Amino acid sequence: MPKDNYEPYVFPDLTRLFAPRTVAVIGASEKEHSIGNHAMRNIVQHSAFAGTVYPVNPKQAEVMGLRCYPDVASLPEAVDVIVVVVPAPAVRAAVEQAGEKGCGFAVILTSGFSEADDWGRAEEAALVEISQRTGIRIYGPNCPGLVNLNLPLGLTFSPAFKDDITPGPIGLATQGGGLGRNMIQHNVRGIGFGLWSSSGNECDLQVADFVHHMAQDPEIKVIGCLIEGFKDGARFAAACQEAARKGKPVVGLKVGRSAYGARAAQSHTASITGSAEVNSTVFRQMGVVEVDDLDELVDVAMLFTRKMPEGTEKIAVFASSGGAASLCADNVGIAGLELAEFTPETAKRLADALPPYAGMSNPIDTTSISISHPDAYREALAACADDANVGLVLAPLPMDYGTYSVVNAGSLKAVQDAASVPIVPIWMSERQGGGYAKLAEAGLPPFRSLRNMRKAVRRWIDYGLWRAARDTGWQPGIIATGSQGDPDPTRTLSEVEGKRALAAAGVPATAPEIATTAEDAVRIAQAMGTVAMKIVSAQITHKSDIGGVKLGVTGDGAAAAFAEIMANARAAVPSATLDGVLIEPMAPAGGLEAFVGILRDPVFGQVMTFGLGGIYVEMFADVTRRMLPVTRPMAEEMIGELKSAKLLTGYRGQPKRDVAALADLIVKVSDYAMATPGLVEMDINPVWTGTEGQGVMALDAVIVVEE
Amino acid sequence: MPKDNYEPYVFPDLTRLFAPRTVAVIGASEKEHSIGNHAMRNIVQHSAFAGTVYPVNPKQAEVMGLRCYPDVASLPEAVDVIVVVVPAPAVRAAVEQAGEKGCGFAVILTSGFSEADDWGRAEEAALVEISQRTGIRIYGPNCPGLVNLNLPLGLTFSPAFKDDITPGPIGLATQGGGLGRNMIQHNVRGIGFGLWSSSGNECDLQVADFVHHMAQDPEIKVIGCLIEGFKDGARFAAACQEAARKGKPVVGLKVGRSAYGARAAQSHTASITGSAEVNSTVFRQMGVVEVDDLDELVDVAMLFTRKMPEGTEKIAVFASSGGAASLCADNVGIAGLELAEFTPETAKRLADALPPYAGMSNPIDTTSISISHPDAYREALAACADDANVGLVLAPLPMDYGTYSVVNAGSLKAVQDAASVPIVPIWMSERQGGGYAKLAEAGLPPFRSLRNMRKAVRRWIDYGLWRAARDTGWQPGIIATGSQGDPDPTRTLSEVEGKRALAAAGVPATAPEIATTAEDAVRIAQAMGTVAMKIVSAQITHKSDIGGVKLGVTGDGAAAAFAEIMANARAAVPSATLDGVLIEPMAPAGGLEAFVGILRDPVFGQVMTFGLGGIYVEMFADVTRRMLPVTRPMAEEMIGELKSAKLLTGYRGQPKRDVAALADLIVKVSDYAMATPGLVEMDINPVWTGTEGQGVMALDAVIVVEE
Repeated sequence: MPKDNYEPYVFPDLTRLFAPRTVAVIGASEKEHSIGNHAMRNIVQHSAFAGTVYPVNPKQAEVMGLRCYPDVASLPEAVDVIVVVVPAPAVRAAVEQAGEKGCGFAVILTSGFSEADDWGRAEEAALVEISQRTGIRIYGPNCPGLVNLNLPLGLTFSPAFKDDITPGPIGLATQGGGLGRNMIQHNVRGIGFGLWSSSGNECDLQVADFVHHMAQDPEIKVIGCLIEGFKDGARFAAACQEAARKGKPVVGLKVGRSAYGARAAQSHTASITGSAEVNSTVFRQMGVVEVDDLDELVDVAMLFTRKMPEGTEKIAVFASSGGAASLCADNVGIAGLELAEFTPETAKRLADALPPYAGMSNPIDTTSISISHPDAYREALAACADDANVGLVLAPLPMDYGTYSVVNAGSLKAVQDAASVPIVPIWMSERQGGGYAKLAEAGLPPFRSLRNMRKAVRRWIDYGLWRAARDTGWQPGIIATGSQGDPDPTRTLSEVEGKRALAAAGVPATAPEIATTAEDAVRIAQAMGTVAMKIVSAQITHKSDIGGVKLGVTGDGAAAAFAEIMANARAAVPSATLDGVLIEPMAPAGGLEAFVGILRDPVFGQVMTFGLGGIYVEMFADVTRRMLPVTRPMAEEMIGELKSAKLLTGYRGQPKRDVAALADLIVKVSDYAMATPGLVEMDINPVWTGTEGQGVMALDAVIVVEE
Repeated sequence: MPKDNYEPYVFPDLTRLFAPRTVAVIGASEKEHSIGNHAMRNIVQHSAFAGTVYPVNPKQAEVMGLRCYPDVASLPEAVDVIVVVVPAPAVRAAVEQAGEKGCGFAVILTSGFSEADDWGRAEEAALVEISQRTGIRIYGPNCPGLVNLNLPLGLTFSPAFKDDITPGPIGLATQGGGLGRNMIQHNVRGIGFGLWSSSGNECDLQVADFVHHMAQDPEIKVIGCLIEGFKDGARFAAACQEAARKGKPVVGLKVGRSAYGARAAQSHTASITGSAEVNSTVFRQMGVVEVDDLDELVDVAMLFTRKMPEGTEKIAVFASSGGAASLCADNVGIAGLELAEFTPETAKRLADALPPYAGMSNPIDTTSISISHPDAYREALAACADDANVGLVLAPLPMDYGTYSVVNAGSLKAVQDAASVPIVPIWMSERQGGGYAKLAEAGLPPFRSLRNMRKAVRRWIDYGLWRAARDTGWQPGIIATGSQGDPDPTRTLSEVEGKRALAAAGVPATAPEIATTAEDAVRIAQAMGTVAMKIVSAQITHKSDIGGVKLGVTGDGAAAAFAEIMANARAAVPSATLDGVLIEPMAPAGGLEAFVGILRDPVFGQVMTFGLGGIYVEMFADVTRRMLPVTRPMAEEMIGELKSAKLLTGYRGQPKRDVAALADLIVKVSDYAMATPGLVEMDINPVWTGTEGQGVMALDAVIVVEE
């Protein structure tokens, strides 16, 4: 396969950004409520930072008891990180001095750059130039900074930093600050985020770099991403591959699933939001778990920290309300998850522990013995958790029952301490009572709704399956970046050119020829057998409408067909230049029509869309997509993913189609696209698909390339 | 249309159940923590009950300072309600005495009836007999009771009653108690449930009766239902019609959307859970807003209490975080809702109030002026709320920002006080800070996630549209109950019988005749034109496989065809009784195939399924359903609802199909089914559907009736 447009990704080492030994605060201030004061306080007072802090401010001799330096150049050493909070016009000089001095990173909190105006865009470009020239890496600008809550250290001006210091195994990469803070505040559930980057304009370092870093950090088990727009989609995909290699799930929420969201996110972050369908395709392909809202992101991440899934886990539902048991089991079923069958030993333990009127098959309804006999409740829960068939225990708690809830939460904790499978509480009440607090404290962060539980467990299982499949050898491949931004002027290949290009690339396609005389036409038709004939003219697009197409022509008949087509064309569009009549063999009757398209996504480069034609696409949107390159196993997956796949494999006694040839064609098209960097888009439609052994054939192809 | 199997519903007057003047507690007790003590306390101490309370207990002279009676018979008057908490074996006598005395209602909290064992089932049947004989209506047994929080009065043993007394405009009907309590506890958001029934085994009164009552109660604006299983589906539908007539939305969650849930709910409530598809059909048809989880039920109900929708409302998004603005706008778009365009006046007010770097088109991002300039934040919000194009303002609040959040919540309240459109906060943080409490207190119950907001607003708008459409004259019609439970032994009509029955009912169907000789065959074929011929034998099912079918036969050719079919049949199944050869006209080529089915749902009676045949059903499940009767406008709706509807209305230059004739056929099939109470199921497949003017024709029909 062609290698020209591949680009290996080299990710920066961010160890000293997240765990610096020395930090300078440019714009440090004693002034209460100033940004420079907040930033200093967060490092000096609210962090447990053992390194050296240098305040920089030409107007002050000392800040918070530390000697203050007039500028970066006069610092006694090249610090790991400068945190920049001076006004925008003063930022460039500070970063330039830091770069020249050999500092590692500039965390620029200041706003007023590319998100604001032309001056800001130019200034940001100058920062990038400094970074490239001196090697200093830039975080921001226009951001609240970053936090390492596992130290803890906050390189941020946020006054909320001190209230949300909970260490933990989740890494979080966002762009804006508000929604990240929202997720961090799920720490009331007892779940902590060890690292949080919130990288604003991302003129240099971007979400992909933080994902890659978190993949290396041994304290981080799972990575959450909230993405408003991508700077470099392929870089993100490569970072996700790295996380997968390290066995760390990435959970993603992408803003811009609707036109409103895409527009708003673009104006907020000045990033490319791209197509939601392509984004979802890439997420799925790279094993990124896509979620629907912020709480779902936290829920899924939280579940991964409890245990990494095998994908084969069966569920036990353990409740003390019949309604909660039913509704929880219902949600298990809705998600397509499986309830475990208890072993005879478990059944006996349950029968011994619970009263006869309790629900003892799965789901379990202990009834009110959770209140009257907490020991029996605990023993029954332990029986569930010990069952060899159970991979996850769900414990829905529908209401806040005051101290009774606290006792039950304690039972969950006690049983979990001795159990190897995760016991997952669902605190369903909006009232966060003492039981909720007890669960949080016990390291059993509760889900908050059955719907969220269902979605999270489904995604957890699916990740296990994805990982298992990946372990068997599937590789997502290297990413073709293609060109980004506005394409150059384009040209559409003629039908003859296009089909010759496909044929040269090994894609089965009809081989048309152009007849300019009736004699030509007869000669060509005689060689081809039964043919289709159509007028060739740049000025005539709707060929059928003007009588410019004849189908099923054979041999001598081509002469009359040629004359008729030319006459019809001349009559319909007298001014048109007629280049002749295209003649090509007709495909055998009874083929099924498929299509293969390639587009160049502005974020993720070349992406293939495949499906069956007509109704299936237009009414049922029955298509499947992949980033290129598409390998043979991927092509087979794509074919199998169609809802209408049965039409290919033999529906209602219809013959099986030539799926092998179709898969070959998909791979060849992928190869062709990868080898054609100037390809803007192509659409092979229809692909005639014969029965087994008959092969496939591109009957029409529109190929658009950069000029 | 036939009327025989219609049944008008007469609903009981439950005024004195929810607002009794006199209550007796059967099993009242002084004993701390006993059920009888809780029940007494809830009425005497925790309610504001101005009526008379009679404790009944033969072992005590006085309970809580009130004179105690030895039994119901000795009470000085016929009370409105007896609350029964004595053990199951003592329940029947108390209810019998109450019935004979002329008491109105028995609220039976005691368990151990049909949910437990055969004795309990028999005892429950005896209670029903007492109710029918004496007129006393029974609530329960096996339930936590009912509460009227608008008084407040709690006829319940729940120790949680006293902690959840928030009056409000939502009525709630559940069966079990735990999940109902879950919803009641959303009162921490500042939203109250005025009435809550939780009716357990429902041996007499059932959810439908409570919905009907809540539809009459002037203090109730919206009704929530959580249904584990139906006792009488048609009664429920009729109650929902009544709520719609009163302009009150019903919001429903049905357990049993999966096999696990259906099985669990059935064992929990001993009700019929029915088919999830049919349930959703009925909900949609009756305007019941179906939700996916308990919090969604509360969210949707809450939004209805804010304002009844027109269905045309456009949305403003007002945030002080760029990310929240984007993600909220994204959710608006995902839900297919519309962002409002601001008027020039609003644009000017926003420009005057906000800094130039704020996001001033919709969605609004005030930036941090929400903290630095709360007055400007308030003025900008007022500008949004005053805009004539805005029907709803969404205010996402992504994080708990301590006192700043409290100030912003105060601004929301101040602007809402002067505004006519609802201002809807989304408190997205899991941390329920002071701002959350302030919103709750201000009567602005917050949503808790953007996803839930999106779903609730979509359902709110959809209800407005449903109501508007309903106002234009559409009527859901009367419900055909059909038989319930196990059907009697059944019989399948022969093809000739079936088609004659359809034709007699005005359903266009081929009119087959049976030829027993070659001469017959020729005579029949000559009269019909081009015909299809097939063997008729009870012993031969796969007719084509044995050469028992001939298509496209004309005139004299029928003689040879007859001989060949008979010979083939004889050769293939020598022992078969051959009744002759069925001959019927062939439908013209090129028709589209549709199908119409009727099934008798155990909960909702006769339900029609309609769709296009083959692939569309099997791969894409592209069908639509209605409870019978289907009127002509409903039939047109059904046709239009198919994803593949375009195939009927002219896809890609294909001719338009005879939609009018298809709609007529649907109505005639509905009429036929309604007139055939013994109909167990029917499947007309295919319905040949010609081009406009060509009509339609039932080509095959399987009709199963009770013997």
